[in-house]
Amino acid sequence: MKTNPDRTELAARMSAMGEKARIASRRMAAMSTFDKNNALRAMADALDHESGAIIAENEKDVAAAADKGLSKPMIERLKLDSRKIRGMSDGLRQLIELEDPVGKILSSCIRPNGLKIDKVSVPIGVIAIIYESRPNVTVDSAGLCLKAGNAAILRGGSEAIKSNSALLHCINRAGLEAGVPEGAIQAPPPGREAVNAMLKMDRYIDLVIPRGGEGLIRTVAENSMIPVIKHYKGVCHLYVDASADLDMAERLVVNAKCQRPGVCNAIESLLIHGDIAGSFAPRIAKALSGKGVELRGDCEFRRLAPCAIPATEEDWSEEYLDLVLSVRIVPDVQTAAEHINFYGSQHSDGIIAKDPAAVSYFLNQVDSAVVYHNASTRFTDGGEFGMGAEIGISTDKLHARGPMGLRELNTYKYIVYGNGQCRE
Amino acid sequence: MKTNPDRTELAARMSAMGEKARIASRRMAAMSTFDKNNALRAMADALDHESGAIIAENEKDVAAAADKGLSKPMIERLKLDSRKIRGMSDGLRQLIELEDPVGKILSSCIRPNGLKIDKVSVPIGVIAIIYESRPNVTVDSAGLCLKAGNAAILRGGSEAIKSNSALLHCINRAGLEAGVPEGAIQAPPPGREAVNAMLKMDRYIDLVIPRGGEGLIRTVAENSMIPVIKHYKGVCHLYVDASADLDMAERLVVNAKCQRPGVCNAIESLLIHGDIAGSFAPRIAKALSGKGVELRGDCEFRRLAPCAIPATEEDWSEEYLDLVLSVRIVPDVQTAAEHINFYGSQHSDGIIAKDPAAVSYFLNQVDSAVVYHNASTRFTDGGEFGMGAEIGISTDKLHARGPMGLRELNTYKYIVYGNGQCRE
Repeated sequence: MKTNPDRTELAARMSAMGEKARIASRRMAAMSTFDKNNALRAMADALDHESGAIIAENEKDVAAAADKGLSKPMIERLKLDSRKIRGMSDGLRQLIELEDPVGKILSSCIRPNGLKIDKVSVPIGVIAIIYESRPNVTVDSAGLCLKAGNAAILRGGSEAIKSNSALLHCINRAGLEAGVPEGAIQAPPPGREAVNAMLKMDRYIDLVIPRGGEGLIRTVAENSMIPVIKHYKGVCHLYVDASADLDMAERLVVNAKCQRPGVCNAIESLLIHGDIAGSFAPRIAKALSGKGVELRGDCEFRRLAPCAIPATEEDWSEEYLDLVLSVRIVPDVQTAAEHINFYGSQHSDGIIAKDPAAVSYFLNQVDSAVVYHNASTRFTDGGEFGMGAEIGISTDKLHARGPMGLRELNTYKYIVYGNGQCRE
Repeated sequence: MKTNPDRTELAARMSAMGEKARIASRRMAAMSTFDKNNALRAMADALDHESGAIIAENEKDVAAAADKGLSKPMIERLKLDSRKIRGMSDGLRQLIELEDPVGKILSSCIRPNGLKIDKVSVPIGVIAIIYESRPNVTVDSAGLCLKAGNAAILRGGSEAIKSNSALLHCINRAGLEAGVPEGAIQAPPPGREAVNAMLKMDRYIDLVIPRGGEGLIRTVAENSMIPVIKHYKGVCHLYVDASADLDMAERLVVNAKCQRPGVCNAIESLLIHGDIAGSFAPRIAKALSGKGVELRGDCEFRRLAPCAIPATEEDWSEEYLDLVLSVRIVPDVQTAAEHINFYGSQHSDGIIAKDPAAVSYFLNQVDSAVVYHNASTRFTDGGEFGMGAEIGISTDKLHARGPMGLRELNTYKYIVYGNGQCRE
């Protein structure tokens, strides 16, 4: 079989990158908290000092994006200014304050034969993050991986290539001087081929985290031989029970839909118990319409709120990320839970109710990473959960579920201390 | 596009199976400990009562295996008798004694805004187990999944099809009568196509656990769209440091290699520090040869132990599962750790040493699920770790590492209790 020389060169380059990351990861696992914090401080300072040069590179990306006709919100997300860079450096400084997750004894026991078995937290190793658009993910991810003792391979979107490269060079230079091993933070060469090759490098990479649109995440999940933790879409719900305080329900629904509709923990669907629909449906329709929300309802909801347009089957599993909300009237909490489990994305879903039986049924039966009683779904966030920072919100069930912070960027090993025990 | 009618029928059958398992899993998540234990007892009793019929079905498998010319050890593993069936029913009864892992509050906090956030253990959902040969895995896995609140889809090897089917019918009938929901324990239709279809059913199955040879595990990992926890090969090592107690070292090496060479936590490679090789190499060569172990050494070891044959590059990463051991002389603990990280399978590796610096270097730097100081690697086992029972030993780093018991068959969810909190 003939081999494409470009492909061979790429393969060699990718292996070299992987091996470097693996070697760096072993040294990083042994770095002290003091050294890691020093490096984070040096990286933050470097970002502040070099923000002019970074913005100059970013302007080239922005100009290219405008030429390509990218949408205005996309360009807004791409654009850096000194305030946004200050946000990144402050993010790194906040990581200094957070507890080092490495080396904690999670449990310990002494077996009848005298073996002492400690379960100890250790870094995962090498983590690849594949993301789109926002260049701040470069700095946030690098900082989180460093503090958790992991090497990072960062693959940003092609539209942010110059910005990401400038950010990476800046924090890498500062990190290296502060004692971070070479290869701790790397970017693969550009192009789809490199990503495809990366997803097969299970020898060098321990975990892939895709962050971005549904298409990106699906492609990564389908092609990866490395374990993936998906940070997938948020089709979140609030269910207003017959026993709900309707004033509270109105406030919570409006907050969960309107406070920031473009994020994954905003609600996309509202379920209303039939017994209170007569009073609550017109009221919430008025409140939401007043905020500019387009309502898509089932028959019964539209009868009570004529401003709503018909919802199609697709609407029930759609992540609008916009001022649009689907609404359904349900006969009971069982139907609400079934609807959420069937159409939802196992992200964040809540019940507004006073009846303890309905509350406990809902909280137990809804199979989502975060379930809420009498609160807005918008709280699903590492900061709001007290984790300090997050690499994303996992919609997977294994390893990490919901907001994923420093602790979730670690795994564990068992350390067994003996004095000559043989197995009989 | 034309569709093969057989394939359409299979797809429909598989979806029906998946949906039934999903529905059952929701009901199982809410089963009380009392009800689950009752079901386990009923299943154990049924196995004891129906052991004659099960053995009769097993005899058909054994006869077919003999016709097909399966190896004697394979046939031994396949064969059931009343003692082995009693072992299965006792295994189920032991699960009754173990703590129910579901519904534990893993952590809890109250945020400044008054939100109470509980992190609570919940079943994973639907678990598919793909395994070979030993029919007892059918009963062990079904029991573990049930106690942990999960629905199970069990796909055994084709050579054990009648035995597995008899076992499954027996425990299912007893379970159903005792209140286990229908669909809680299922087997897919036979054939490779069914397995391939199953690995794409990420809508219905939350986790796939392959248990068996390297080929099976690799195929599953490469084709699955569902998260896989691999229970891969064990290329385990002992490293005898210059500071080792050599009497202890001899005992531990002999135990780790010879006590049961066919299992994944037996050692396949021995590393000896150069400073003590002159005395230890001839001594351990004699002890191991006396037990019938074939030694494959590097140059230096063969100089000291002429009975050894040359080790090839492949030997260093080979899982012999037999009375064969590769041996290398290393200059220091750093080289030992590097060798293990490079050639090993991140399963179980140990150091025999008195020097605290060498010990701590080894335990920190060796990136394996279980690292040992002064003990045999043969202790990597759910029972020996005090977990009571295990579904296998994970060589992955995510979710579960090392022995995987009831607790590792659960995930968690966050339950957030509010009183009307909106995000500002």
